Amino acid sequence: MRQVLLRLRPVGLPTVDDFEIVDVGTPQVGDGDVLRRTIYLSLDPYMRGRMSDEASYAASVGIGEPMVGHTVSQVIESRNPAFAAGDFVTGYDGWREAAVSKGNELRKLDPSLPISSAIGVLGMPGLTAYVGLLDIGQPAAGETVVSAASGAVGSIVGQIARIKGCRAVGVAGSPEKCAFVVDELGFDACVNYKSSTFREDLAAACPRGIDVYFENVGGAVFAAVLKLINQNARIPLCGLIADYNATEPRPAPNLRPLLVKRALIKGFIISDHPGRAGDFQREASNWVKAGQIKYREDIVDGLENAPSAFLKLFEGANFGKLLVRVSPDPTRRAG
Amino acid sequence: MRQVLLRLRPVGLPTVDDFEIVDVGTPQVGDGDVLRRTIYLSLDPYMRGRMSDEASYAASVGIGEPMVGHTVSQVIESRNPAFAAGDFVTGYDGWREAAVSKGNELRKLDPSLPISSAIGVLGMPGLTAYVGLLDIGQPAAGETVVSAASGAVGSIVGQIARIKGCRAVGVAGSPEKCAFVVDELGFDACVNYKSSTFREDLAAACPRGIDVYFENVGGAVFAAVLKLINQNARIPLCGLIADYNATEPRPAPNLRPLLVKRALIKGFIISDHPGRAGDFQREASNWVKAGQIKYREDIVDGLENAPSAFLKLFEGANFGKLLVRVSPDPTRRAG
Repeated sequence: MRQVLLRLRPVGLPTVDDFEIVDVGTPQVGDGDVLRRTIYLSLDPYMRGRMSDEASYAASVGIGEPMVGHTVSQVIESRNPAFAAGDFVTGYDGWREAAVSKGNELRKLDPSLPISSAIGVLGMPGLTAYVGLLDIGQPAAGETVVSAASGAVGSIVGQIARIKGCRAVGVAGSPEKCAFVVDELGFDACVNYKSSTFREDLAAACPRGIDVYFENVGGAVFAAVLKLINQNARIPLCGLIADYNATEPRPAPNLRPLLVKRALIKGFIISDHPGRAGDFQREASNWVKAGQIKYREDIVDGLENAPSAFLKLFEGANFGKLLVRVSPDPTRRAG
Repeated sequence: MRQVLLRLRPVGLPTVDDFEIVDVGTPQVGDGDVLRRTIYLSLDPYMRGRMSDEASYAASVGIGEPMVGHTVSQVIESRNPAFAAGDFVTGYDGWREAAVSKGNELRKLDPSLPISSAIGVLGMPGLTAYVGLLDIGQPAAGETVVSAASGAVGSIVGQIARIKGCRAVGVAGSPEKCAFVVDELGFDACVNYKSSTFREDLAAACPRGIDVYFENVGGAVFAAVLKLINQNARIPLCGLIADYNATEPRPAPNLRPLLVKRALIKGFIISDHPGRAGDFQREASNWVKAGQIKYREDIVDGLENAPSAFLKLFEGANFGKLLVRVSPDPTRRAG
């Protein structure tokens, strides 16, 4: 059983040398334990924060400790009556090929949905979109909602906005991504933030201004959005990926538009909102089954490739939810 | 009857040459009209916004038009049964020695309180403090509230915070102002933002962090506060005086603390909250009468001195609510 450890604390952009992959042998299975083999590991921007020892909302990963992360696994051996060999489960096993525990933190998966969705559209990224958009953003039908659009969270924000009768405008990093966001995900428009005409394009895509901006980007996108917000705009803030690798805190745009427009910014951390998981699971499962929410996965094979894959997040190189397939998924025909 | 007109739109800091004082003769009093003589004119930071033609929440003052502002006046002649000569009223007559209208927008003053308080502690600045602190800041007993402390709004914020059982920490621009804020207004502490040790001093004054920051300053104060906010901190934002004369929008500090601390910033404009004026008048009048809220006025005599007095706001040179005494106050013994 291999696992990926944090070897060095990165300064600025992480590199593959900040990680180390080690073989730790086969885990022992004790009384009440559940041994499972990791199938999918979720790679998410928040993990950058865990690599740092700067004070944050969650403890850092220690040097020499395995990286944390959400996983989908299959039970190999169970000495716990709640689980049987062959069960598919989701948990927080980290960057490892296998894990063993009493299983209290594991959740069995609904076999009628793709198992990988448990750590994507129906997992933490989906719940983040749901809580941030609905509870903080409180979109009303006819309003304009802007979000990042090709990543795991933002792509769901826009689709829920559409379900709620809003105009959904995405922001993504290439014409190909924008085409996907409009043609496949059903956003009303999508703007390429790497274009030299980004500000003008965003304004053109939001002819009635912006009522809700789901912020997980920061940087130039936030600055452009602020110029377009409507009165009483709401800005749920769950991430600032553009800033995560800055070695100095980068300034934000002038906040005068918040004052003039009586706007709201509210930071939130999804782990504070476990009480919404039930509503979310029920609603989002139905939306996925009905085809009202679609999703795309960007899958990298092999735990040894997790470090290099993780770095794609900060280049905007992923296209959809970034996953590592740590071992073959027996529920999919083609590997 | 003289009035002060806007002559030029300032770029950056206004100067006295941006204003012009003109004599417009005696107003005509028609049927139903109320003619009143201005006693006090309130000078407030928001007026800088009205001098600009940049889009904002209220219309600009036109070039050649009289500057707007809250006033306390005495009725000289009334052809309206609702008012009698001698009544003291408050209104929005602007930078003028007299005004005439049907009087619908006038409010008669409670003669048991100093008439100047109607445009200060019991007027728009007081209501701004009340709504921002209580409705957005929602301070709980034992929490720490930080505000500017020697100006018209911030001085009241801290005193209401004390009434609600909070630790009130003020920010002011000199040791003399800080001494007044603690000794006379009863704040728990006050920190001089012009000191080279401001950041350390603020941290020392807030040993349990900051739960509510009433923001009407911007600039370096906001940056220092953000480093000290507690989880679920609330930041009502009603002004950014440090930025009002900037010719380029100045950047804000990095907003990562909002995310990590799940904090809220909410812009508000007091004219959106007329429904709170009744509660405010009742509560604040009682607090003033009971000596629970004290206030200081910085009074400049003569309408011709309004332009130079107004500029004091942007140097932090006022000490208390800045007023122009346009004509003698017959309710005060010494002029």
